Amino acid sequence: MFAVCTLCADMDKKKLLQDVRQYRYAHEHEILKEFFDLLTIPNVSSDAENVRKNALFIRKMMEKRGINVRILETEGNPVIYGERMSSDSRQTLMFYIHYDGQPVDPSKWTDSSPFTPVLRPGKLRAGSSEPKPMPLPGAGEPIDEDWRIYARAASDDKAPISALLTALDALDRSGREVKNNLKFIFEGEEEAGSTHLLSCLKKHKDYLDADILFMCDGPVYFTGDPTLFFGVRGITSIQITVYGPNTSLHSGHFGNWAPNPANNLARLLASMKENSGRVTVKGFYDTVVPLSELEKEAIHNIPKCEEDLKKLYGFSGTEGSGKTYQETLQLPSLNINGINSGWVGDQARTIIPHQAVASLDIRLVKGNDPDDMVQKVIAHVKNQGYHLCDGEPDQKTRMAFPLLARVEVRENGYRASRTSMDLPICRRVIDSFSGYFEKNPLLLPTLGGSLPIYMFSDTLNIPIIGLPIVNHDNNQHQPDENLRIGHLWQGMETFAAIIMMEDR
Amino acid sequence: MFAVCTLCADMDKKKLLQDVRQYRYAHEHEILKEFFDLLTIPNVSSDAENVRKNALFIRKMMEKRGINVRILETEGNPVIYGERMSSDSRQTLMFYIHYDGQPVDPSKWTDSSPFTPVLRPGKLRAGSSEPKPMPLPGAGEPIDEDWRIYARAASDDKAPISALLTALDALDRSGREVKNNLKFIFEGEEEAGSTHLLSCLKKHKDYLDADILFMCDGPVYFTGDPTLFFGVRGITSIQITVYGPNTSLHSGHFGNWAPNPANNLARLLASMKENSGRVTVKGFYDTVVPLSELEKEAIHNIPKCEEDLKKLYGFSGTEGSGKTYQETLQLPSLNINGINSGWVGDQARTIIPHQAVASLDIRLVKGNDPDDMVQKVIAHVKNQGYHLCDGEPDQKTRMAFPLLARVEVRENGYRASRTSMDLPICRRVIDSFSGYFEKNPLLLPTLGGSLPIYMFSDTLNIPIIGLPIVNHDNNQHQPDENLRIGHLWQGMETFAAIIMMEDR
Repeated sequence: MFAVCTLCADMDKKKLLQDVRQYRYAHEHEILKEFFDLLTIPNVSSDAENVRKNALFIRKMMEKRGINVRILETEGNPVIYGERMSSDSRQTLMFYIHYDGQPVDPSKWTDSSPFTPVLRPGKLRAGSSEPKPMPLPGAGEPIDEDWRIYARAASDDKAPISALLTALDALDRSGREVKNNLKFIFEGEEEAGSTHLLSCLKKHKDYLDADILFMCDGPVYFTGDPTLFFGVRGITSIQITVYGPNTSLHSGHFGNWAPNPANNLARLLASMKENSGRVTVKGFYDTVVPLSELEKEAIHNIPKCEEDLKKLYGFSGTEGSGKTYQETLQLPSLNINGINSGWVGDQARTIIPHQAVASLDIRLVKGNDPDDMVQKVIAHVKNQGYHLCDGEPDQKTRMAFPLLARVEVRENGYRASRTSMDLPICRRVIDSFSGYFEKNPLLLPTLGGSLPIYMFSDTLNIPIIGLPIVNHDNNQHQPDENLRIGHLWQGMETFAAIIMMEDR
Repeated sequence: MFAVCTLCADMDKKKLLQDVRQYRYAHEHEILKEFFDLLTIPNVSSDAENVRKNALFIRKMMEKRGINVRILETEGNPVIYGERMSSDSRQTLMFYIHYDGQPVDPSKWTDSSPFTPVLRPGKLRAGSSEPKPMPLPGAGEPIDEDWRIYARAASDDKAPISALLTALDALDRSGREVKNNLKFIFEGEEEAGSTHLLSCLKKHKDYLDADILFMCDGPVYFTGDPTLFFGVRGITSIQITVYGPNTSLHSGHFGNWAPNPANNLARLLASMKENSGRVTVKGFYDTVVPLSELEKEAIHNIPKCEEDLKKLYGFSGTEGSGKTYQETLQLPSLNINGINSGWVGDQARTIIPHQAVASLDIRLVKGNDPDDMVQKVIAHVKNQGYHLCDGEPDQKTRMAFPLLARVEVRENGYRASRTSMDLPICRRVIDSFSGYFEKNPLLLPTLGGSLPIYMFSDTLNIPIIGLPIVNHDNNQHQPDENLRIGHLWQGMETFAAIIMMEDR
């Protein structure tokens, strides 16, 4: 049901793929050499000096590919902006990647230094330092696609920089003309909360226009196949405190008569969800923008991974009333992050606790407003008979209301993003991207996790598609971060396909 | 409805009370002097050397009153046993008191040393060191009954030793003949769990017979009136762990689909109690031995303290479906002591926790067997669809059952005790004790708290009545433990009335 490619177009794609592969076969050593050099520059967001060294190194990498580069200074680490405009006035594709990385604790890494990239002939076995490191083979020697590169940012998020720029090399060397305009935004503070990105985007808004923005971050789907995602869930988080007596009470002297806040909290939380996991908070699903037919079909086409996930994480019962895993991610969720009241285990004491606290997050989908969703939960708490306080209740309040609770917003949330797959530009991306690989790309309408993509969509008003390339088992944000080399190669091909996508 | 005292008997009681008071007025200074000397000997249970010094001091106090004393050695601190037998073969009254005390942290006391008794002209005001200490007045100078003595064990439990022995003095000096046989068991390890008491009782069982045993410990009722209690609740405690995924999961990636153990635990706990507080575990109330008419009337006669307690502890809603506070204490309770799952507050993270744990205690009343009650809760958990594990479930178990939990017995419990008020000996105690004071004594069928009174009832097979004398605001087990002097005086009178109680 995606726009069917003509036989001719398919032939072109096969040829393109062949050309990119041919180029890569001939330059694997050179590509990895440049990538290793990039990984060697420490890039922890807080290490401003080294992050800037990365920016200068990447600037050179870009300029080598004929990209005009500007370093956009912010109050934090710089944003690297690049342009490679075509003489045709074709569509403009913009690519977002971040070049900073997560903090490192070298003592937790199998190899001593996270910024000395290490090649291994496979994935590290759990709890072992096998397989052992090996040197990078000399030029012309074969490189296996299952080998892995261990280093901070190998996957998150330097791999897309290498794959994107070497894809350009492959296209240029094959004599193809890149007719689309290309723009690049490489951020240096993503792992530190993107503090200065929004103001930078606003400041340079005038020339940051494009037809589509690709967010090149995160791993491909569990199956390892090329993946596009069109949205992410938003998030808001709250904390509910149920108040009991003004001090813990002896459970013998008062058990059966004094109110127990842990019991009341349990009842309150239980009232918010059916056994099936369906949230019973009034109106919780009312503002959800339904999926289009195209999006529904995309979800239907995603390979089922339920049984694998259950085995991996050791459970057999699920929420979602029999919905598939992917279907449940298209809906808002109300999830308990934690509960605390009194003590358990060795610390348990025979008391009636004075309060009980639960932290919850609400994952949002397109149509949900964070404040509105919080208000709905608040209304539910009130409907259960609670009087809501702004803080620790005073004596007068305690004597006036039998049920007392506080609902706090833990962190100001942000809404979900979802670019409609039905937009012409999105259909073109999907079409251009199809027919290359053995399997068509996986199209995910919404990732389960949350990213503040709204920053881009609000400021730049450009449709956004997520374009991840790395393996899902990359130890993202953890020690022993790694990249499977086959995914770097697949990433090059993916980028080549996107760069060459047809205009209107 | 208690056996009505004749006018004549009432006159006798008034005379007795007068005599005891007369004696006390003339000897207040001397009584307090001896009591201060006793308080000066440190008595923390673990301090064997000093505890023994207490035993030797008390032995002398007893011998001074014509009591035959034997030090019963145990593997821990000694038990002091005493007898004062009458030439008549009248009934035998046995008194249990413990002479050891709770540990102390002198830095937390207002006065520097918990074993240097300090006299104050009133109760310490909260957060203040006022009123200031004062010296013990000289002989003949008036002593106010609202003054307080601050020292470890002043109330718990040396006050009854002083009150009981000085009551004997008062009776002896007034020329009255004590016709009842008196036996005394003073324990030295109560605050350390009475580890060696049971074996000691068994060893010396032959001569430890009596018609009634008075447990002289704990405070009188909130109102300050003389109090008798006939039972205590038993206790057993459990811990319920509900298992989720084998590791915490990202709530974005999996929220709405992976099972949330905190949510399941909340639902499970909520299923165990109605809004009203009534426990819905099947058969929870089935084995409760109903109260007799006499016991019901006793409860009815206890002054209502509900409104005061609500004000004191700052709540207006209660459990118990409108039952009075005392009525709820006559029933078993299922109380959540604590819940823990994931994190809350500053530590909250957006996860699905891997497990959720609740600790609970079950207070038992007469008729409830600890094991049976735990089995009923276990059956309830199973009825909610849970498969129960003995520990962390293995992968096979995880894959086989959608709901997994573990129920552990936290501490082996013990059953409740309740001596029937309808026994002739109990009716005599109540009768003898009535008509002395402005108000009749408060009769509590069951205290809310738990004590291992079963140790005595099982071994010695004697009816047991609790006979507390000290003020309820004595800071029991805490720093600044104290005794209101008026309660010591009232205790003397109480003991005198009991010692002189009529035979059959």
